[in-house]
Amino acid sequence: MAPSTIKLNTGHAMPQVGFGLWKVDNATCADTVYNAIKVGYRLFDGACVADYGNEKEAGEGVARAIKDGLVKREDLFLVSKLWNSFHDGDQVEPICRKQLADWGIDYFDLFIVHFPVALKYVDPSVRYPPGWAVDGKDDVQLSNASIQETWTAMEDIHKKGLAKSIGISNFQGSLILDLLRYAKIRPATLQIEHHPYLVQPTLLKLAESEGIAVTAYSSFGPQSFIELEWQKAKDTPVLFEHPVVTKIADRTKKTPAQVLLRWATQRGLAVVPKSNNPERLQQNLKVTDFDLEQADLDAISGLDRHLRFNNPTDVSPPFAHF
Amino acid sequence: MAPSTIKLNTGHAMPQVGFGLWKVDNATCADTVYNAIKVGYRLFDGACVADYGNEKEAGEGVARAIKDGLVKREDLFLVSKLWNSFHDGDQVEPICRKQLADWGIDYFDLFIVHFPVALKYVDPSVRYPPGWAVDGKDDVQLSNASIQETWTAMEDIHKKGLAKSIGISNFQGSLILDLLRYAKIRPATLQIEHHPYLVQPTLLKLAESEGIAVTAYSSFGPQSFIELEWQKAKDTPVLFEHPVVTKIADRTKKTPAQVLLRWATQRGLAVVPKSNNPERLQQNLKVTDFDLEQADLDAISGLDRHLRFNNPTDVSPPFAHF
Repeated sequence: MAPSTIKLNTGHAMPQVGFGLWKVDNATCADTVYNAIKVGYRLFDGACVADYGNEKEAGEGVARAIKDGLVKREDLFLVSKLWNSFHDGDQVEPICRKQLADWGIDYFDLFIVHFPVALKYVDPSVRYPPGWAVDGKDDVQLSNASIQETWTAMEDIHKKGLAKSIGISNFQGSLILDLLRYAKIRPATLQIEHHPYLVQPTLLKLAESEGIAVTAYSSFGPQSFIELEWQKAKDTPVLFEHPVVTKIADRTKKTPAQVLLRWATQRGLAVVPKSNNPERLQQNLKVTDFDLEQADLDAISGLDRHLRFNNPTDVSPPFAHF
Repeated sequence: MAPSTIKLNTGHAMPQVGFGLWKVDNATCADTVYNAIKVGYRLFDGACVADYGNEKEAGEGVARAIKDGLVKREDLFLVSKLWNSFHDGDQVEPICRKQLADWGIDYFDLFIVHFPVALKYVDPSVRYPPGWAVDGKDDVQLSNASIQETWTAMEDIHKKGLAKSIGISNFQGSLILDLLRYAKIRPATLQIEHHPYLVQPTLLKLAESEGIAVTAYSSFGPQSFIELEWQKAKDTPVLFEHPVVTKIADRTKKTPAQVLLRWATQRGLAVVPKSNNPERLQQNLKVTDFDLEQADLDAISGLDRHLRFNNPTDVSPPFAHF
């Protein structure tokens, strides 16, 4: 079963449900990707930064699936991201080419600016996969590459065919509006943290009115962050057990995860959940073939707490992007 | 009594308590400014947009106070703002010069970008004071002037001595960080909506770490907007009557307004309240000579609802800046 798709402003169709490669172990990543393709996943959402850092392995899974005839390259929608330390205009193409080489492919379907944070360039020969700090610990150093400089280099990537669509992630309203003033190629997608504790209705309305598709990450809220031992996540009620969610799940005979994903997809968003469990892997894919009632959608949206887990402010206080 | 001052990154001292000219009637504005100077106000916060639209009259009040020997020009700190329809790089200096001519002065102490919104240029001979819509009603049209283009022109204003300091208003984190990447002259101040229903701790931390002074507007929350008949304001509990505020006011023998202003000034912010009542005019000025306890400050901050009244999204859905 092919999941439903969202038509991007570049004309390309993006699967509405994909598989997120964040925190997928290197040791199991190739098999995980292979199995996900087998189950029906077509979109894989990766990145080069250390807490992904599995582009080679993801590419191995893809290559094996293609070799075994499960899919062709053109059936897949492969996404990766420009890390913060490659924002300098002259570093965007080299790192994109390295990432493509790691995947073993010659184009990304979508390449996105991971954060509107410009960090000092660190050569991949010195440190790779990259991270927030130059030294891998506390030494966070900035670059002065403006978003315009970075975006112009992203446009070049697109023109050269290295990425069929280009997009942004973790950008907020006023910065998106500024980017749209100078963009010659508009972002096709915006990827954001989005769950019932962080509903962001005005940002979604902005994206919709500007023809930018939105992909939600961390659709299960605190869940993704509990395993990172983040106190903020531990202190927040788990959404899988929240009575608003479980009541709807019981009534519709879906899992809480499916209810949360359907809430997002029914709002028009793409989602990129992850699971290591084969059964849940299948369940997560089946979140566009049933409808929640408007009252259910509203009840879930009513859980909004303006609560953001993935916040650069926690890395460094001056990184208050939101 | 001269109110306490904040030292800006330009070296100039900005009074921590000023008088906001928003919604001050043209008919009474000159007298209001004159009387405020008499009472001790030294900072006046104006703008050219229609709901201020009183720069000539404010300038008359200033001129009369100087003529009567109440103050000298250099004792005053006069602030005005670049409206959205003058963001095009070549329009910044002409409109700043017009605004100076209206005030009858030859420099502003501070000139700030009113919103990170770039609207289509409308010649002052066609429509002045300006507003959101080209036609004064619904026809909101954008300009493609980037914030970098506008800020570069603001820097020129400063270099030419038309503004001793330059700043920004209604900017959010990620856009401020982007501006800092290309700014040759950093913003001296950031003016934001700030009250106990919109506390914005991370934004304040960002400004502090970047050496940008913050001025709070709408310090009384919904109060300023109730007279505009805004439903959102009418639906929100009045802060002057909020038990958390009145309890502290009773105990400290201050007015609720003074408690709210002291909460802001004790957080290090400048404030620009307005009053037509002579007694309250004086009271509002006396909000740096007593201290609230930390528990009081925390209790007031605890009223945070992430509730923004002055939101461009309400003008047009795609203006989701925050």
